[in-house]
Amino acid sequence: MDPPVSLDVQALTFDVFGTVVDWRSGVIREGQAMLDRPDWPEIADKWRGLYRPTIAAVTAGERPWGSFDELQLVMLEQVLSEYGITSLTDAQKMELSFVWRRLAPWPDAAPGLARLKERFVVCALSNGSIWQLIQLARFGKLPWDSVFSVELFRAYKPDPRVYLGAAELLQLQPSQVMMVAAHVYDLRAARSNGLMTAFVARPHEWGPNGAAEVPEPNEFDFVAENFVDLATQLERA
Amino acid sequence: MDPPVSLDVQALTFDVFGTVVDWRSGVIREGQAMLDRPDWPEIADKWRGLYRPTIAAVTAGERPWGSFDELQLVMLEQVLSEYGITSLTDAQKMELSFVWRRLAPWPDAAPGLARLKERFVVCALSNGSIWQLIQLARFGKLPWDSVFSVELFRAYKPDPRVYLGAAELLQLQPSQVMMVAAHVYDLRAARSNGLMTAFVARPHEWGPNGAAEVPEPNEFDFVAENFVDLATQLERA
Repeated sequence: MDPPVSLDVQALTFDVFGTVVDWRSGVIREGQAMLDRPDWPEIADKWRGLYRPTIAAVTAGERPWGSFDELQLVMLEQVLSEYGITSLTDAQKMELSFVWRRLAPWPDAAPGLARLKERFVVCALSNGSIWQLIQLARFGKLPWDSVFSVELFRAYKPDPRVYLGAAELLQLQPSQVMMVAAHVYDLRAARSNGLMTAFVARPHEWGPNGAAEVPEPNEFDFVAENFVDLATQLERA
Repeated sequence: MDPPVSLDVQALTFDVFGTVVDWRSGVIREGQAMLDRPDWPEIADKWRGLYRPTIAAVTAGERPWGSFDELQLVMLEQVLSEYGITSLTDAQKMELSFVWRRLAPWPDAAPGLARLKERFVVCALSNGSIWQLIQLARFGKLPWDSVFSVELFRAYKPDPRVYLGAAELLQLQPSQVMMVAAHVYDLRAARSNGLMTAFVARPHEWGPNGAAEVPEPNEFDFVAENFVDLATQLERA
């Protein structure tokens, strides 16, 4: 697709879980280290699968606002109960729920961000909490200019307040901000609020056999294979 | 002074203007480059001198909330008018008001922060806006984990909401957070809200002949000569 003739974007905001970090491998590894079972890949997917309906319930007002840390623990207890896992102590469950602070970045993420940061302000814009995002950045040496969380707006993505709130904090027009994500629902919401959009493919987010998200043709401003590819494309734009 | 027996601090929050960056030299340099006058040091001090009464008026509800960027322009116009300077265009005044995004750190600041970051989460906690803080960090290569601005709380320091709000975003008790500043008013407010405190001397903040702030004996938990000294003291604590 042809890039816009003159790119006025000054800041890039990034989805984090799935787009920057590989949650699935981390959850499986820590789960397995805590309790030896063959089905951690499935448990990981179920746990992550509860995420969208749970935050949708917050957005719909059916569930009170809770931080992502709190919601992760609630969802973990739900999935452990579904699998009949009763041997973990409360402290263990709490510890496992903190895995969302200790997830490795995809290999291209940190070097790609460093290149993108040369020209653009780069900020996380995630459903994760500020504290999770800070810990993830320290864990993976992610060179953010700053981390923005939905908790600043008390609304989860894809609520418009998240995208418009980030642009306001950046003192930019929405069109001067580009959302980068591996999830079309996030980018569609960003686009409908006036942000530029870049889709980055993460075909292994849900494991080797997981379904890869595929955007419609020309749906987003940029489509990249990874962060390094995105940097290359934006350097030419 | 003896450090606390066991230091439970997990995050350090930093005042920025005066504590991390040298506003005075930057304002004088950019003012002089724009308009050749001998009295830029005095104008710089007057401009900065309007800061406390102006934000106090916001805190007292006598002035509506405005970002620090907006307030800087208002204060600049006030001081230029006081000095009878009428030759600057609106665009020039706007540009000069943006100097608060382009101020060099004190020489110890970036290396000191890098050392402190090895053990602690390090965040700006400033009356500056998020955008100013991001630009300052890029300008001076400051390795923040994240930048927190009073605009997240819509209250200027020393309002308690700023200190307690930062601790809440960090998911820490106030006593697990240490405020670092060169200004006693800021540290006294932090302390009265339960935060730990570290005073860092910046005797040249107001120039070679400016008055240096001096805390009362034992008033704060740590007193350091600069950020590198603070890192050394905290590594021993």
